[in-house]
Amino acid sequence: MANDPDAAALAAAGITWERGGLDRLGELVPGDGPTALVADANVMGIYGARAQEALGARLQTTHELPAGEGAKETGVVARLWSGLRLDRAGTVVALGGGCTTDVGGFAAATYLRGVPWVAVPTTLVGQVDAAIGGKTGIDIPEGKNLVGAFHWPARVVLDEALLETLPDRERRQGKAELVKTQLLAGTPLDARGAAAFKAGLCLRDPHDHGPRRYLNLGHTFAHALEAAADFDLPHGEAVALGLLAALRLSGRDTAAVEGELHPQPAAVDAERAWQALLRDKKRTGDAINLVLLGDGGPRVEERPAAEVRRELERLIK
Amino acid sequence: MANDPDAAALAAAGITWERGGLDRLGELVPGDGPTALVADANVMGIYGARAQEALGARLQTTHELPAGEGAKETGVVARLWSGLRLDRAGTVVALGGGCTTDVGGFAAATYLRGVPWVAVPTTLVGQVDAAIGGKTGIDIPEGKNLVGAFHWPARVVLDEALLETLPDRERRQGKAELVKTQLLAGTPLDARGAAAFKAGLCLRDPHDHGPRRYLNLGHTFAHALEAAADFDLPHGEAVALGLLAALRLSGRDTAAVEGELHPQPAAVDAERAWQALLRDKKRTGDAINLVLLGDGGPRVEERPAAEVRRELERLIK
Repeated sequence: MANDPDAAALAAAGITWERGGLDRLGELVPGDGPTALVADANVMGIYGARAQEALGARLQTTHELPAGEGAKETGVVARLWSGLRLDRAGTVVALGGGCTTDVGGFAAATYLRGVPWVAVPTTLVGQVDAAIGGKTGIDIPEGKNLVGAFHWPARVVLDEALLETLPDRERRQGKAELVKTQLLAGTPLDARGAAAFKAGLCLRDPHDHGPRRYLNLGHTFAHALEAAADFDLPHGEAVALGLLAALRLSGRDTAAVEGELHPQPAAVDAERAWQALLRDKKRTGDAINLVLLGDGGPRVEERPAAEVRRELERLIK
Repeated sequence: MANDPDAAALAAAGITWERGGLDRLGELVPGDGPTALVADANVMGIYGARAQEALGARLQTTHELPAGEGAKETGVVARLWSGLRLDRAGTVVALGGGCTTDVGGFAAATYLRGVPWVAVPTTLVGQVDAAIGGKTGIDIPEGKNLVGAFHWPARVVLDEALLETLPDRERRQGKAELVKTQLLAGTPLDARGAAAFKAGLCLRDPHDHGPRRYLNLGHTFAHALEAAADFDLPHGEAVALGLLAALRLSGRDTAAVEGELHPQPAAVDAERAWQALLRDKKRTGDAINLVLLGDGGPRVEERPAAEVRRELERLIK
């Protein structure tokens, strides 16, 4: 492992890649203070008892969130705040998919002006993307993830055994982020390698002012399609489409994305999608900035609106 | 000014001490991006138009909060989040007392995972205490300030002319924090000197793990009395009482506090106050830690529960 750069990036980011790590949670949560376990209803049913047992005497409270994006409503985080009993020596442990780690991390960022948190992602998208890098957040009616905080987890436990119960549809969500990361890295990566790649990028740019923005490859298109579909389009499928557009605008071959992710045109209104793209927070002023792939790797480029709109419309049924 | 240590501390903390600063807000808010003006209903009526005019073309939205502690409810911050239209180049401008700057700062800390904010405190307690040092927060039913974030303001505009409209009762609230700061500094201070003293302490310990805790002098008692009074006891009056207890436990003369602040015993239930003190988040384990004044200045000391309870009861009618 001495010459394994992935291991160095994972260690620097506080990420433990360990099959069976769930059962060692009591040891893997830094310190010896109390913990509050946060999980959604589905994950609680599958892994809740094991997590509680692993936390043992350190478990203070358990908090069940609604499954899926419903976890990210203001009312849910308000109930979570009210239920916490931690003092400043305590730690929030978020066990679940990206929504659970987003909300659990945000509650930790804001309770007592910030307590530590540990992420235990149970989905592929969580393990290669959502639980890494300290972005936490909730949704408000005006938009997804408009409210949140940067709050780096004290530890991320990546236990690939947890993926064995993952439905295929959920696995496909993560695969889109994995392919995105491979495109950014310019090389094939397994999940551990993708986690390490993201960790390295986020460590270099924790507050998303520089190279971390490359992780938005394809996401300007993806967010626009999701908004136009009232978020009834799975994120991974939207990302697969967005990657197509980003590759085409980069003058790259799209065969890898087509072969791995099989993107299907989305049944959404083109004008709504375009308006959503224009509102996207990654736009500054009137120019449309996109992450594209150049010869030297990813970079942010301005592209004319007409060209961007044409590529967006190619993704729509 | 070259040898003025207060000026150095104020500048390092981003604090502008300027009579008439309100009318220069458009220049004093860093950058040239849009701004969202946040003020409570009372302050909006007195200074809202001047602030809007001063922000000029940079004013994007205006948000009126309920006056007083009612501003700090989750529902109020949720409405504020929903009303903001800032992008990452935008700044929240919080104009008002401590509740307004607490909420405006918290909204800024959490909107788009953090945008800059500017505090323009309009009360003495805001100018010498609440608006300085980056503590932001809201209340939940389980306790005051249980939710919040450390988010240092990009600028604090201290315009002493704004205090001319301050009711006497409000001025007394600030005077208690001013006397507290003088006790900590071991020397008489005016408002500017107290602001500089607090700024210096917070710059040395922004996340409140060390010397910043000295600012809690008297506050363990004050919080207990306020809780036992269902927060119907003004904070400054509770702090004045708390300072008495802290001085007595420090073996110090209480004449200055009696003469300046005229503390009156509180009409609260002693047992409720004691239970509230035991729940206070500054307690670790079973020992009661208090900020007291030693020969070398303030320090955190453990004191036996019986002694602390006896001093608490001396503050109660």
